[in-house]
Amino acid sequence: MDDRLVYLDNSATTRVYSEVAELMCKIMTEDYGNPSSRHTKGIEAEAHIKNAKTILAKLIKVNEKEILFTSGGTESNNLALIGVTEANKRAGNHVIVSDIEHPSVAETAKRLEELGYNVSKLPVTDKGVVDIAKFKEMLTEDTVLVSTMFVNNETGAVAPIEQMGALIREHAPKAFFHVDAVQAFGKYKIYPKKMNIDLLSVSGHKIHGPKGVGFLYINEKVKIKPIMFGGGQQNGLRSGTDNVPGIAGLALAAQMIYTDFESKIAKMYALKERLIDGISRMPDVYINSIRGEEAAPHIINASFLGVRSEVLLNTFVASGICVSAGSACSSHKQTVSSTLKAMGADIKRMDSAIRFSMCEFTTEEEIDRCIEVLEKELPMLRRFVRK
Amino acid sequence: MDDRLVYLDNSATTRVYSEVAELMCKIMTEDYGNPSSRHTKGIEAEAHIKNAKTILAKLIKVNEKEILFTSGGTESNNLALIGVTEANKRAGNHVIVSDIEHPSVAETAKRLEELGYNVSKLPVTDKGVVDIAKFKEMLTEDTVLVSTMFVNNETGAVAPIEQMGALIREHAPKAFFHVDAVQAFGKYKIYPKKMNIDLLSVSGHKIHGPKGVGFLYINEKVKIKPIMFGGGQQNGLRSGTDNVPGIAGLALAAQMIYTDFESKIAKMYALKERLIDGISRMPDVYINSIRGEEAAPHIINASFLGVRSEVLLNTFVASGICVSAGSACSSHKQTVSSTLKAMGADIKRMDSAIRFSMCEFTTEEEIDRCIEVLEKELPMLRRFVRK
Repeated sequence: MDDRLVYLDNSATTRVYSEVAELMCKIMTEDYGNPSSRHTKGIEAEAHIKNAKTILAKLIKVNEKEILFTSGGTESNNLALIGVTEANKRAGNHVIVSDIEHPSVAETAKRLEELGYNVSKLPVTDKGVVDIAKFKEMLTEDTVLVSTMFVNNETGAVAPIEQMGALIREHAPKAFFHVDAVQAFGKYKIYPKKMNIDLLSVSGHKIHGPKGVGFLYINEKVKIKPIMFGGGQQNGLRSGTDNVPGIAGLALAAQMIYTDFESKIAKMYALKERLIDGISRMPDVYINSIRGEEAAPHIINASFLGVRSEVLLNTFVASGICVSAGSACSSHKQTVSSTLKAMGADIKRMDSAIRFSMCEFTTEEEIDRCIEVLEKELPMLRRFVRK
Repeated sequence: MDDRLVYLDNSATTRVYSEVAELMCKIMTEDYGNPSSRHTKGIEAEAHIKNAKTILAKLIKVNEKEILFTSGGTESNNLALIGVTEANKRAGNHVIVSDIEHPSVAETAKRLEELGYNVSKLPVTDKGVVDIAKFKEMLTEDTVLVSTMFVNNETGAVAPIEQMGALIREHAPKAFFHVDAVQAFGKYKIYPKKMNIDLLSVSGHKIHGPKGVGFLYINEKVKIKPIMFGGGQQNGLRSGTDNVPGIAGLALAAQMIYTDFESKIAKMYALKERLIDGISRMPDVYINSIRGEEAAPHIINASFLGVRSEVLLNTFVASGICVSAGSACSSHKQTVSSTLKAMGADIKRMDSAIRFSMCEFTTEEEIDRCIEVLEKELPMLRRFVRK
């Protein structure tokens, strides 16, 4: 790790824990078998998969057979949306997704519309929180799937998951509840059974685990069809040779991120306040995130009015600080943030938004360095802005 | 690696090269950025992806933009079949797959049938080679896709790829040619442009690279649609955060497996003959693979008539030898080999088939140990067989 580099883009991806990388290296070169093989090397590999399932099932208090491994958050979300609607075609045709979903949900929802499903977009408040009154009105007998993010990847806003789960049970008895927890897992204790969540997407590389692997919790009562076809691995629901080192790495990362959990989260909340305090002292800034413990501990989104995101981004890079404008996933599309837009932000706020995202390794010094750069550079950058 | 263990199941999966595992470990803990991010860490990560594309494109003599990274062979095959038929619906409705395809092609072809496509199954000879005369008859103006394996995963039989490519160009001008090269890559020099191959599937873990990653070569003229939706990575064709360590590991493994290529292949052919010679001396055996250089260098499939595959498999395990009955991918289904069935093998041959699959690290001593175990155990096992 580059000692001088300040990495505040942990919502894009995280550094893999050394312990995780070492475990994966060992599995790749020693326990390299195919878990479908019925011999010594296959059995070794299968034991790693079983162990990973035990760890993850315990962490979220579900049954081991309810954990399905995927190639990451995008596949988990695609499988949840396409697999559930297809398996429940006869039960209904109505799907609800929130207005601030990650593209892997939003674009898949568009695909469902092409396929003839009736997709409702659930609006959010100016703080980026799902509008629960409108949500209640949307639920019908024909609703088969509701999909929402737990923590928004751009602002850190938290959806009222338990409340939504309860409303679904009451007003849309045939609907399954899918929660994209890619940004929430490792930051919140999530118990799907208690929260009425039927499907939960998790990605490895957001929790100091490997890229290219994730899981989808699927309650055993959920009817779902595969989106990939082949050798019939994972009870026919996800064909393809199991990614043994990736799966073992994902489970170890999950275990590690939930170790000393409370103190890590408290530390991040303190850093969040420190950064927001620092930013708030500057003129013409707008904090797009909710302060304090009402929102996630690791994401701070702020608009530096009058300075375009790209310009500020480059200034940060020159100062050895990694942040992002919006999310990494949409960074190669030159569009404005759909989340800020859904929150009703004006073009000035959208054009100048920066996302700072922390992890358990983020320090006070790094936050202070970030504030320092802003204090020094912002006035200079603003001098060049056309009035 | 367990020194005493004889691993002859390399067609199921291979041990990852130490250099590959080390590179991946370094990327996971140091160059951990998201290649979609526009900062130092993102640029580092993107450089690994670019480098991997350069290596792979050079190896098979194609353009870098024609390489698409996937989560492995199964996804590559699914994308080729579903993505091409969907994008070319207007051009035609006819698909041809061979009778001996891997489940990731065979099951996806079934899916295409459900969706209304007309799927023809191309028969093979008793040696397991695609029947080229019948193939010619099957090609029509309505054919949009032909999919066949380069090397069969159970027997090592090689399809007449160049001949097929030429026939397609002549008799089915609208058809794209997909070749599943999962067992062939690293064993043959494959040049898609020269061989008239439009799409080529490759998997990392069959070439001493990582599990959970592969690529699909897609000729730039191929019309194809994505099967996963999201952030629009890889030009919108494969959404999801790029698996940077996996992709870099895949490329390094490809580079390494093609280093000293000719001598590795010659060595494997010698070992293949050594094993077949040894087996052929035993009574009541049937060699299901084609001898010599007409077939792949690394796969030997033989039936030990009168002894059930599982029984022999367990005997091998007890002797520290890892082999398989058919392929690993179908091992959790208690069905007979579809490849041997398509070759017209009787039930006795199918019930007693064992696949030995080698890699560049396989030694004469290991082959001899294998023969030794067979010579010692076979007569004993046969004594217990019901007459």
